[in-house]
Amino acid sequence: MTGQVHLTLDEVHALAVRALAASGFSAAQAGAIADTVTAAERDECKSHGLFRIPYYVGALKNPDVDATAEPSITELAPGVVHVDAHFGFAPLALQMGADPLTGKARQNGIAALCINNAYHIAALWPEVERLAERGLVAFAFTAALPYVAPAGGTKPLYGTNPMAFAWPRKDHPPLVFDQASSMTARGEIQLHLRDGKPIPEGWAIGPDGLPTTDPKTALEGAQLPFGGHKGAAIAMMVELLAGALVGDVFSYEAAERDTGTGAPCGGEFLIAIDPARCVQSGAGQLDHAERLFAKILEQEGTRLPSDRRFAARARTPVEGIDIPGSLYERILEFIRG
Amino acid sequence: MTGQVHLTLDEVHALAVRALAASGFSAAQAGAIADTVTAAERDECKSHGLFRIPYYVGALKNPDVDATAEPSITELAPGVVHVDAHFGFAPLALQMGADPLTGKARQNGIAALCINNAYHIAALWPEVERLAERGLVAFAFTAALPYVAPAGGTKPLYGTNPMAFAWPRKDHPPLVFDQASSMTARGEIQLHLRDGKPIPEGWAIGPDGLPTTDPKTALEGAQLPFGGHKGAAIAMMVELLAGALVGDVFSYEAAERDTGTGAPCGGEFLIAIDPARCVQSGAGQLDHAERLFAKILEQEGTRLPSDRRFAARARTPVEGIDIPGSLYERILEFIRG
Repeated sequence: MTGQVHLTLDEVHALAVRALAASGFSAAQAGAIADTVTAAERDECKSHGLFRIPYYVGALKNPDVDATAEPSITELAPGVVHVDAHFGFAPLALQMGADPLTGKARQNGIAALCINNAYHIAALWPEVERLAERGLVAFAFTAALPYVAPAGGTKPLYGTNPMAFAWPRKDHPPLVFDQASSMTARGEIQLHLRDGKPIPEGWAIGPDGLPTTDPKTALEGAQLPFGGHKGAAIAMMVELLAGALVGDVFSYEAAERDTGTGAPCGGEFLIAIDPARCVQSGAGQLDHAERLFAKILEQEGTRLPSDRRFAARARTPVEGIDIPGSLYERILEFIRG
Repeated sequence: MTGQVHLTLDEVHALAVRALAASGFSAAQAGAIADTVTAAERDECKSHGLFRIPYYVGALKNPDVDATAEPSITELAPGVVHVDAHFGFAPLALQMGADPLTGKARQNGIAALCINNAYHIAALWPEVERLAERGLVAFAFTAALPYVAPAGGTKPLYGTNPMAFAWPRKDHPPLVFDQASSMTARGEIQLHLRDGKPIPEGWAIGPDGLPTTDPKTALEGAQLPFGGHKGAAIAMMVELLAGALVGDVFSYEAAERDTGTGAPCGGEFLIAIDPARCVQSGAGQLDHAERLFAKILEQEGTRLPSDRRFAARARTPVEGIDIPGSLYERILEFIRG
């Protein structure tokens, strides 16, 4: 099938659930993944939308993946919750961890969520946005597979290691950014490969350590951190938080676990902060932040980090979304079996 | 006086204390600042060493600055400590906040320190390193004066807004990075101006919005964030954490407070995490991190972020340090009065 297929967001969700359920995912795992995929399509984050369904299903070729895993929750400290994903996928673990993390953040002012043994294929913004919708400031960090060279080096060691941050806003979706510590998300290079387009210079080096604009050579070589050694430092920080701190693997260790299905298994670390507990009198923090946002937008050429997603979100529930016919066919094949 | 003046670290500390005391600083304020300045000279972070003493003294021209302020400590939540610096300088507030923050981090697993009304002229690495020396993972964030253009914009709005991170190591000083969210620290541009050297391209734009390599034009224009919109997002995050979250000012508001002395007054936000409270069984996190550091250093051309500082630290207690004779003279003048 060529051309585009038009779907409503309800159809996106139902399609994802059916494809995952037909492939052996439990209702809980499939539902949480479909929520994430649908949110990505709603916000026109195509690289985390239905495009990812084949990656979720493909991950089941790895016998260690448990598509029916039931995450378990433990309190490690008054301010720390632990969710063991038991080798299922991250979205369900994150969904289940959100309530205890929120409770602890409100109780103590600041709290952390440590996730282990989770297969990560999704963006991080859904989890920090969910917390900010509850009035919390939130951070999330996760490592991946070794794709990115350390500062000064030429061989892949770090994951694309996103760090996400969300700030609650009144009468507006939260301010959110979710940025890879590489120049670009790996999914973007994969999309360029799929579409037969060269990648911009500065995204990656080839296996020979030289700059490349060929997406295939880039995927075989090493991605580059954003902003040189500063981005590399953030990539390293993410490894430490989502790896050593939560007692899980680094990206290079995740690769040793992975059997070529491209789905990294590892940890995720989240921090949630209740702004009302960070000042003597709670009033005015969110209004104050709005004045900063207004100052930013006063300057011509600026925008806030999540504005494109929110603009898409205003359209897609009414207009629906389009996906390539070839992708739609591929997902239908999972349902047909 | 031309040429260099050689000093031991004890002489650096004594010189700083004498210059500050003679200028009206309390013993507590002078001592905390001298500790920070001496640590910077010890680590050959020249832009935060004795070079800063004239900035501290110059800040007293601002009648709002209180060089004898006694910070006060309040508990805002089980996981949140507040230190009001009462318009003194940050180092004393940070010194006093370290113990309660450490206690809360060990008790709850994660804790925060909110600092208000502090004059900031120092680097952030001393405070995160101090926490990591106690076995904690630490973050620090502070805003400054409006020097950096937002993503897509051309006018200064954000501070150089450093974010610092520290990870504890066994038998080794902590792993620490302290990086401006601008391409470079403002102090570096000031050093280039002092030394009559051009700055590299990409650091700044002039008041006309065009790229410049002239340090004077750069200081009058806008610094650029590191890594484009991703660095700008981090700069914005730092504004939100050190400004709105802790109930203090944004960089552009600090400028409105400042009377041209160049010392920003505002907030600082720190997070401390006890790694032992983030796993079911505490063993092995630090050893695990060492394996990552070894993997990084396996690649030719790499180094860990604070290695240059620690290499200097191995030398300077024995060999002492040099400062320009002109700077030494200037500091002596404060003592002579």
